[in-house]
Amino acid sequence: MTEDEIVAAIATLCRSSSFGTNRIAPNKLILGIGDDAAIWQPSRSHRSAISTDMLVEGVDFTSEAMSPEDAGWRAMAANLSDLAAVGARPVLATVALGFPQATAVEKILELYRGLAACAAEYRIAIAGGDLSSAGAIAIAITVVGEVRSSNVKTRSGGRPGDVLAVTAPLGSARAGLELTRRELHLSSELADAALQAFRRPSPRVAEGRFFATSRNVDALIDISDGLATDVNRLAGASECGAVVEDVPVSAAAAAVAAALGEEGASFALAGGEDFELLVAIRPRAFKYLASRYAARFGRELIRVGSLRDEPGVIRNGTPLERSGWDHFER
Amino acid sequence: MTEDEIVAAIATLCRSSSFGTNRIAPNKLILGIGDDAAIWQPSRSHRSAISTDMLVEGVDFTSEAMSPEDAGWRAMAANLSDLAAVGARPVLATVALGFPQATAVEKILELYRGLAACAAEYRIAIAGGDLSSAGAIAIAITVVGEVRSSNVKTRSGGRPGDVLAVTAPLGSARAGLELTRRELHLSSELADAALQAFRRPSPRVAEGRFFATSRNVDALIDISDGLATDVNRLAGASECGAVVEDVPVSAAAAAVAAALGEEGASFALAGGEDFELLVAIRPRAFKYLASRYAARFGRELIRVGSLRDEPGVIRNGTPLERSGWDHFER
Repeated sequence: MTEDEIVAAIATLCRSSSFGTNRIAPNKLILGIGDDAAIWQPSRSHRSAISTDMLVEGVDFTSEAMSPEDAGWRAMAANLSDLAAVGARPVLATVALGFPQATAVEKILELYRGLAACAAEYRIAIAGGDLSSAGAIAIAITVVGEVRSSNVKTRSGGRPGDVLAVTAPLGSARAGLELTRRELHLSSELADAALQAFRRPSPRVAEGRFFATSRNVDALIDISDGLATDVNRLAGASECGAVVEDVPVSAAAAAVAAALGEEGASFALAGGEDFELLVAIRPRAFKYLASRYAARFGRELIRVGSLRDEPGVIRNGTPLERSGWDHFER
Repeated sequence: MTEDEIVAAIATLCRSSSFGTNRIAPNKLILGIGDDAAIWQPSRSHRSAISTDMLVEGVDFTSEAMSPEDAGWRAMAANLSDLAAVGARPVLATVALGFPQATAVEKILELYRGLAACAAEYRIAIAGGDLSSAGAIAIAITVVGEVRSSNVKTRSGGRPGDVLAVTAPLGSARAGLELTRRELHLSSELADAALQAFRRPSPRVAEGRFFATSRNVDALIDISDGLATDVNRLAGASECGAVVEDVPVSAAAAAVAAALGEEGASFALAGGEDFELLVAIRPRAFKYLASRYAARFGRELIRVGSLRDEPGVIRNGTPLERSGWDHFER
């Protein structure tokens, strides 16, 4: 079973057993399992969004590739990216941390320093948490945010004809990961950019809120598992297919891929953890939105393709399959 | 360092780095690290409460002692108990689950069945989650609830003279744990009660909300680590001391303790995981509140002692130290 299949089985189970007699009427829980974040309605005018992620040392990060502080930053950033993907403003986080008894307290505090630095950068509070003994370090973060009801975006609102665009060139995080594994001849500027993208990614929270305010944005998702997987997810949830025409590769990813004799596009398509956003935009509004985006963020909103009626995702005339990493494929 | 000391170091670190430039003004984050749940203010009239817990197989539960379904129920119940302790009505939960790749999918779904059954019993939705590969099964649950601002209770509001009371006799969960470890001659009724308390605990959500509406309740905490530890926590947070006069032991705990040649009181004081509530009540209101409690819940609100000016917790003239289990004492 793949991760998506296990999630689907769990979602069915949770719906059948808990929603029947639920005090949260379907209109109160706006968005449940299956999107980047869940959304509920604490009061008539408000929507709250919540997302949770677990990172395990040795699986999602290693001490060879990054310091505890970087691991903390990255864990927090991954969660904030999920809130960005529904257009929410992050408010607070809770952190559950499991670690082996023998772990030096200083390592735990280092990790928290990274969590707290990212929280401070995005102006959220770490409001609570839990400590547990565990075989390996495991960080489970939950973030809560707020979003006006009219601004909520999901991955499922895309329509045939929508332009698909990404918030920046992709592949840098994968390039950074490669650099932690081997020596490569690279300008220090590109190497720094790649390592920064890998160790200290910047979730696109402001960008997510920018898209959330636009009626011409039909769907939004963060690119956590590579463009190929996340285009498939957005298109599938929107009951569309898609054509991918351009795969924007960051300069750092291009340089690292070249040094390894690989294609830069594969870093962007399958690298994952870039935490950029993928947006589906009404075609007539794309140009205007892109110019406002460039003015606001000083970066180009990059067209990568479009949604279409026919199911499946196509690139260069052939199917583009999900290719991001799956924890549970077997 | 003990768990409480590590938590204190983390709280200091989070405050110094994130609260300085925080968009969550202190008045928006009502209650942060250090209580059972954190509380924030999504809108002027509303308070939301959030709590998170991590349970690890082999540490917090074992497959010998309980089924995956029971482990799921218990993990959810522990979190709901934290919301009960601030007087909140639970709304939803998220679940992050780490498990070894070799885990049978059926075991994961069993675990979720327990989570979902407890969620349904308390009428909350499982709104989202994450799956991760991990060395052992680790469940991190976050629950969110709502509470009227005037009803928020904390562990720190107690005053000298307040009556300390608990929502039911204690020690059953520990008795149940003992029964999973060895054969004991016991009536099936008592054995069932003990095993039920251990495997399918009932967090006191309705009771928490009942206390939350009373102005005569000064402080509230759930008894997750045994009465001794949690009286110390409530008294310490309230800057009081306490005298413990009575330690109510459940019939199941008394029977199991007797069969083992141990004192029933030690199950209640140090057993932990009973998930009853400990309440500090204005002395003149105790009798009235206890009669309303008995009428509403069909159980006695049991006086265990009182808060006093002098620091420290005393029982039978000698200090009563924290004795609950600590993950990190070293």
